[in-house]
Amino acid sequence: MLSSTGGHPRTPETVGELGEFGLIRELTSRIDATPAVRLGPGDDAAVIAAPDRRVVASTDILLEGRHFRRDWSTAYDVGRKAAAQNLADIAAMGAVPTALLLGLVVPADLPVTWPAELMDGISDECRVAGSAVAGGDVVRGETITVSITALGDLQGREPVTRGGARPGDVVAVTGWLGWSAAGHAVLARGFRSPRAFVEAHRRPEPPYDAGPAAVDLGATAMTDVSDGLIADLGHIADASRVRIDVRSADFDVPAQMQDIGQAVGVDPLQWVLTGGEDHAIVATFPPDRKLPARWRRVGEVLHPSAQSRVTVDGAPWDRAGGWDHFGGDS
Amino acid sequence: MLSSTGGHPRTPETVGELGEFGLIRELTSRIDATPAVRLGPGDDAAVIAAPDRRVVASTDILLEGRHFRRDWSTAYDVGRKAAAQNLADIAAMGAVPTALLLGLVVPADLPVTWPAELMDGISDECRVAGSAVAGGDVVRGETITVSITALGDLQGREPVTRGGARPGDVVAVTGWLGWSAAGHAVLARGFRSPRAFVEAHRRPEPPYDAGPAAVDLGATAMTDVSDGLIADLGHIADASRVRIDVRSADFDVPAQMQDIGQAVGVDPLQWVLTGGEDHAIVATFPPDRKLPARWRRVGEVLHPSAQSRVTVDGAPWDRAGGWDHFGGDS
Repeated sequence: MLSSTGGHPRTPETVGELGEFGLIRELTSRIDATPAVRLGPGDDAAVIAAPDRRVVASTDILLEGRHFRRDWSTAYDVGRKAAAQNLADIAAMGAVPTALLLGLVVPADLPVTWPAELMDGISDECRVAGSAVAGGDVVRGETITVSITALGDLQGREPVTRGGARPGDVVAVTGWLGWSAAGHAVLARGFRSPRAFVEAHRRPEPPYDAGPAAVDLGATAMTDVSDGLIADLGHIADASRVRIDVRSADFDVPAQMQDIGQAVGVDPLQWVLTGGEDHAIVATFPPDRKLPARWRRVGEVLHPSAQSRVTVDGAPWDRAGGWDHFGGDS
Repeated sequence: MLSSTGGHPRTPETVGELGEFGLIRELTSRIDATPAVRLGPGDDAAVIAAPDRRVVASTDILLEGRHFRRDWSTAYDVGRKAAAQNLADIAAMGAVPTALLLGLVVPADLPVTWPAELMDGISDECRVAGSAVAGGDVVRGETITVSITALGDLQGREPVTRGGARPGDVVAVTGWLGWSAAGHAVLARGFRSPRAFVEAHRRPEPPYDAGPAAVDLGATAMTDVSDGLIADLGHIADASRVRIDVRSADFDVPAQMQDIGQAVGVDPLQWVLTGGEDHAIVATFPPDRKLPARWRRVGEVLHPSAQSRVTVDGAPWDRAGGWDHFGGDS
């Protein structure tokens, strides 16, 4: 009878019950077909368009407990964040994302909904950036591990490294700064609002199109802000053998972020200058370059000195900048 | 004084003591510079030549305890094997390996020598295949995890998938079959010899150049043998909607492998037909094609039937073929 409610086969609920091939089917069903992915999952390897005759590639690994917590972020948000972090690296070279490969470690007792929603998040973030999942690998293990490799196309542009900043260049940034860190501070105290900051921590919004656009504007050096602005500018300063000075008055510290800072006893400028994970894009440009309004000028490139590589208002920033993934949250 | 033996700073011995950036320096010092890697590690992303305007990409994850054991394999051998497994996937599409990205999870108390020797193994295997490490990510975690993404160039060839086998085609294989499985059987019983089989388990030797060569020979379908010949031919049979029959008399079962089989009570044909990890290359060719001596003809492609997708001497192979990474060694 059509109205019968019995007799349905029980849907597998854990990845162990579903099995490797069942899980792969479940995940691949959530992937977009795009013109750049010539051959998607299911063979020995994927085939992806690389019209520039060069391919830009970046890998990141995220571990549960270290890079995300299941009680703070949904699987969907972890997927958005993991993809965003890799896609931002592609944009920060001046390239356009084309495809992404996913390596996934999942415990056998993990509900199937978790990797399925993770894949939805990854696919949705890929869609924002014009990319799609092209392949991957799934294995069973103790700790949920999300390993993503993103690929991109330079469309004839020269890649912008961290090594081209010259004294006299201006430093400009586009995207969010400190929002993820402020959201983290809120979550760490057990709160769920202000929602905009919590959302920013769960789901960064990198300005993907700003990367290739910066190349066209003549950017001399570029990176995305993943470790914190001071730490990431330090990478530019090291690679370019220059000093970089930022002016604290040039940053936008929204009133609500100031309120959170007051509530938790932290100078919000600390979040703006050292908070990672927003994946803003920071670049250096020749001083005469007229930059569109989306770019905020926040500092300048100076000759190297024996002092700090990065200074704030001319002096070393006296609090810990960024963090070493091995040393913990120091 | 020059002869002083004291006062040397203590060399860091664990990855935790060395720190993230120190470990990255240690690893990148072991990487070859190659023409294909236009921009190597140290920036937001790597830039790799893709002269064909398409890039072939494959990802695999290996976990300690599941895919390797530190008491059975040295870090160097794990590196060789992890790289070989990915590079073989590139070859099995008919492409030439160009670069590899490494995602690595290491416990803080792991001696630095372990990831350093792993990287030596990866670099040496890349060298065999004409590839090199272009970038990666290192994070701290509980379980040693090696996530590798390999990239390759088709050099104008069309990729050979698993889906093109046609009834009447011959099935041919090149490389080793069953050697790794026989070596595993030896090691599992606490022995270290015969050495050739133990070595084959620790360090596979995929016939990388056979992949592109097979395209030029007109291969209609191709894959590398990673799950076991019957399982991998099953992937071709599924994708091509055909049946494949192999003839047991056509396989080479060396006398020493027969001796091991007798010693451990296993029919060595089982290793040849279902043992994975040797990364031989199996392909189907039109029946009229004259194949070089390195290819051993082992079967033929038949019209699909309601029976098994893969048969041995016309009958289903009655033992478990290959293994499901979630179901264990069934």
